[in-house]
Amino acid sequence: MKKRLLVDMDGVLGDIYQQAIQYEYQETGVLIKLEDVVGKDEIVAFPNAKRHVRTQGFFRTLPVMKDAPAAIETLQSYYELFIVSAAMEFPNSLWEKHDWLAEHFPFISWKNIILCGSKVPIQGDILIDDHYKNLDPFPNRSLLFTQPHNMANDNGHERVHSWKEIVTLLT
Amino acid sequence: MKKRLLVDMDGVLGDIYQQAIQYEYQETGVLIKLEDVVGKDEIVAFPNAKRHVRTQGFFRTLPVMKDAPAAIETLQSYYELFIVSAAMEFPNSLWEKHDWLAEHFPFISWKNIILCGSKVPIQGDILIDDHYKNLDPFPNRSLLFTQPHNMANDNGHERVHSWKEIVTLLT
Repeated sequence: MKKRLLVDMDGVLGDIYQQAIQYEYQETGVLIKLEDVVGKDEIVAFPNAKRHVRTQGFFRTLPVMKDAPAAIETLQSYYELFIVSAAMEFPNSLWEKHDWLAEHFPFISWKNIILCGSKVPIQGDILIDDHYKNLDPFPNRSLLFTQPHNMANDNGHERVHSWKEIVTLLT
Repeated sequence: MKKRLLVDMDGVLGDIYQQAIQYEYQETGVLIKLEDVVGKDEIVAFPNAKRHVRTQGFFRTLPVMKDAPAAIETLQSYYELFIVSAAMEFPNSLWEKHDWLAEHFPFISWKNIILCGSKVPIQGDILIDDHYKNLDPFPNRSLLFTQPHNMANDNGHERVHSWKEIVTLLT
């Protein structure tokens, strides 16, 4: 039987930082650089992020993380792959995330998408995520996708830096 | 630690049959009776159901199952309770289900709502559902909520008939 692989969306399949930088720049003219926000929570790094993530279109127009679609398509043949995204906090993101996946990852079945609040009840063999709050309680193999906010500490997880590296590691 | 209780929406918290009967009647003038659809799949029982469930408003205006809100509020103090609903097949239902829960079950946190396709990766100690496809693969205690389509066979699950009965059984 295939192992079950759980894959986060924000900061893993979708590039939250590029979107937040773009939204801040368009609104304030201030260009925030990635090197200036290392180790900071996204909410602290981007002064208007709390409002921007609730703005219509924020999740629908998220840039796709480099090499993610080809990697997911490859990994689907090795694993029972589920997308697991915390979307409930921002209700407008529900259909935006659905439509975004349909556009950029059309080969993922609706059966394999989970939009949730807490990820604790979702069980799998491997979880790829960028947030400790999701990885720390996960009982099985946990891959920490490098993002500026998590660079200071691995918290005991396997750090991965790109989708190419993940495919090499997991296939 | 509290046990984790997973609760389905359609046919358990929301009365799919009353809604389907109402939609068929408004469109065709034919009043389908519950006793005529016993043992039939919902899709077979209601000729236009496939289209109706994709109509805007179908899930947003679902009648609430008798005694469900009070029962859920009670059970929340005994269990780590999650709403688990297969919404991905009908994307318009994503925000409708979110808003419906917010209206009728405002005491459920966004952290405790899961909208998914397959329910297989969602783990808990007890699952209340009306469909065998969800209950049969569930490895722990499974409660079959009586609905016309499942009356013929318990499939080894504990049959429950009302939210009052469930509260008595689980508290």
